[in-house]
Amino acid sequence: MTEPLRVGLAGLGTVGSGVLRLLTENAQLIAARAGRPVEAVAVSARNRNRDRGTAIDHLRWVDDPLDLVRDPEVDVVVELIGGADGPAKALVEAAIEAGKPVVTANKALIAEHGAGLAARAESSGTKLSFEAAVAGGIPVIKMLREGLAANRIASIAGIFNGTCNYILTTMLAEQRDFAEVLADAQALGYAEADPSFDIDGIDAAHKLAILAAIAFGRQVDLGAVHVEGIRRISTLDISFADELGYRIKLLGIARATPSGVETRVHPAMIPASAPLAHVDGVFNAVVAEAEPVGRLVLQGRGAGGGPTASAVVADLIDVARGRSAPMLGVTTDWLATLPSLPMSAHRGAYYLRLSVADRPGVIADVTAILRDQAISLVSMLQHGRSQDEAVPVVLVPHVPQEPAMRAALDRIEALDAVIEPPVLIRIEPQ
Amino acid sequence: MTEPLRVGLAGLGTVGSGVLRLLTENAQLIAARAGRPVEAVAVSARNRNRDRGTAIDHLRWVDDPLDLVRDPEVDVVVELIGGADGPAKALVEAAIEAGKPVVTANKALIAEHGAGLAARAESSGTKLSFEAAVAGGIPVIKMLREGLAANRIASIAGIFNGTCNYILTTMLAEQRDFAEVLADAQALGYAEADPSFDIDGIDAAHKLAILAAIAFGRQVDLGAVHVEGIRRISTLDISFADELGYRIKLLGIARATPSGVETRVHPAMIPASAPLAHVDGVFNAVVAEAEPVGRLVLQGRGAGGGPTASAVVADLIDVARGRSAPMLGVTTDWLATLPSLPMSAHRGAYYLRLSVADRPGVIADVTAILRDQAISLVSMLQHGRSQDEAVPVVLVPHVPQEPAMRAALDRIEALDAVIEPPVLIRIEPQ
Repeated sequence: MTEPLRVGLAGLGTVGSGVLRLLTENAQLIAARAGRPVEAVAVSARNRNRDRGTAIDHLRWVDDPLDLVRDPEVDVVVELIGGADGPAKALVEAAIEAGKPVVTANKALIAEHGAGLAARAESSGTKLSFEAAVAGGIPVIKMLREGLAANRIASIAGIFNGTCNYILTTMLAEQRDFAEVLADAQALGYAEADPSFDIDGIDAAHKLAILAAIAFGRQVDLGAVHVEGIRRISTLDISFADELGYRIKLLGIARATPSGVETRVHPAMIPASAPLAHVDGVFNAVVAEAEPVGRLVLQGRGAGGGPTASAVVADLIDVARGRSAPMLGVTTDWLATLPSLPMSAHRGAYYLRLSVADRPGVIADVTAILRDQAISLVSMLQHGRSQDEAVPVVLVPHVPQEPAMRAALDRIEALDAVIEPPVLIRIEPQ
Repeated sequence: MTEPLRVGLAGLGTVGSGVLRLLTENAQLIAARAGRPVEAVAVSARNRNRDRGTAIDHLRWVDDPLDLVRDPEVDVVVELIGGADGPAKALVEAAIEAGKPVVTANKALIAEHGAGLAARAESSGTKLSFEAAVAGGIPVIKMLREGLAANRIASIAGIFNGTCNYILTTMLAEQRDFAEVLADAQALGYAEADPSFDIDGIDAAHKLAILAAIAFGRQVDLGAVHVEGIRRISTLDISFADELGYRIKLLGIARATPSGVETRVHPAMIPASAPLAHVDGVFNAVVAEAEPVGRLVLQGRGAGGGPTASAVVADLIDVARGRSAPMLGVTTDWLATLPSLPMSAHRGAYYLRLSVADRPGVIADVTAILRDQAISLVSMLQHGRSQDEAVPVVLVPHVPQEPAMRAALDRIEALDAVIEPPVLIRIEPQ
């Protein structure tokens, strides 16, 4: 089997250029591991003449990405256009329809349309691969779907967004405010001009929804993911976390219980000794708890042209070798019907920071509200007084139910003496 | 494809019993991931009547493991007998010869006979799988061979022996001597009655030899691995390491350079902030440095019935799904011919601890020897004086070549004032 695997590639941004470069630079090594050459033969992108740092003159150019599907000399399509709908979706669906394998790094597409795509790919007998869609260069999908295939997975938790992790790491290291660090991250190219997709947790939610589906063998359910971002984390919170022995990370957590699956993305305080606490900067990491393997931790680069290209080409090598797994780990007839659990079913530990007026009776009012919701306190921190009369007060209640905590929070926020909206950060053991 | 995959299992120790239990307990989940049931149908072991905590009455019993190969109702053979030669080797070779896929957890077999077995499996078109042979439940072989298939791997480094890691972790945590902690580990079942295989680094060398072959696409070369164990590490070294900002771990390191491949197993001091520094107790971990993915870290349970069974059954699921890779990542015609480098080609940093008589001129003699070998010092530690007049002195020379260091060491050891053989521990960046 020395016929090359001929690749048609749509989308020539950072990742697309990275894939072309990797296929050239590691060509011999890739051929050895794939058992045959893997060659780009045709490309499509919005702008033919942009300088991409890699030559495309020797490749067939097509204006319409769908021509890659029609081209009998393209064996596999790589979709790197991006976006949950539009041309990306049209291309992937057309490839599946035509029975041509397709590799994508498109997390939004898989997170929003994974259910339908899995069924289509299965009925047409085509492979849709997407290792690059989650955690960039970390082969976490292969690990869950194949490496841990014998295990009952109890939970996965991870740092899935390098932008947020860079911002939180830098805020701690340099004691600088969120807005300032975000501006720097934008200047460095670690954050987009419109950063909301990353910092509001949406990107992490996409990845978590995909991993939760694979871990628990069920449909992708993006809508069920509870999402909170990091905009409201302040250096105050980071200092208090440090004092309490915690680090603040934006986590994605999925947990299977007998009653259903809980999925959530939010800032969390984790013990400074936890495996995820020292995953810093643009690194991603995933912790799986599974039976019988126990705890497994993977850490690596979650974004960037090189690491993401590594995952795309690994998928191409699997195609070349004829290795595959059902998209969600099991075929659709085996998918579990465990319901998704709402956040109101959650019970966990919290850190609550209030900014209160420095006058008598405020703490009494706050603690009375907590008592009314049957919430007891584990600890309370207050340091001196503030010059502008707004004093930060930190409360750590004893693991309340989410609805009780929410109800208390609404009443606390309504107090006159509470000057800013309270900041609530969950405390997690990871 | 709903025909079950029928498994014949030889060897019913901890791992064998773990595999039987796992195939029963997670039967439905395994069937979903494998696309068909995976069922044990026949077993063979030395003693039929031992209590293994799992029923075997419903399974066909064969006295001769080779009967599993001959049995037309066994689709795949699992070899868990152990040992590089004897019945384990005979069974694996017979299965390959018969074209029957075989799964093993036998690191000694693969490390010592990997070269021949890869060629035999390839010419008979049979799959020989051995994920469980390295790092127990961590799917490191799949990660290197498939997940990182597009990458040029520069180095791998890891903690591959849980017994040594447990002993070193406990020595640090409890400030207790090697011999005492080893005795405890034996009582707890973490170390064998004859512990030399683990503590002298041989087990780690087996695993490193296998991983190095896969990482660099070359033949398994166990003989080329430089091996040092942990017997001579004392609480003194652990305290000095702490003072210098290091942790002591037994590491396996494989590195590819343009002139060849260096493989070595030895105790190493690594910065307390390095990814492997906080891998404690019976956990294993692997750090791969690769291009373009960068650094990837995997951590999990490296031994024990459950984690090892997880890897064995993952291999069975791959067999059931028809997924496979060449044994060493590439077929034998693609194997690289990079030579193995001897330890004399190594250049690295060292920690040297001497036990010297407390009298004038000793340090002058030692440093004169280092000067003669053109070795300069980065630091020197000595704390007060000892009651029994033997004073520990620690020297950290500036990255000498291994032969110069060895020559200096021989001369230092020959000094009258040097009371015990010097302790040399390499310093590594991992």
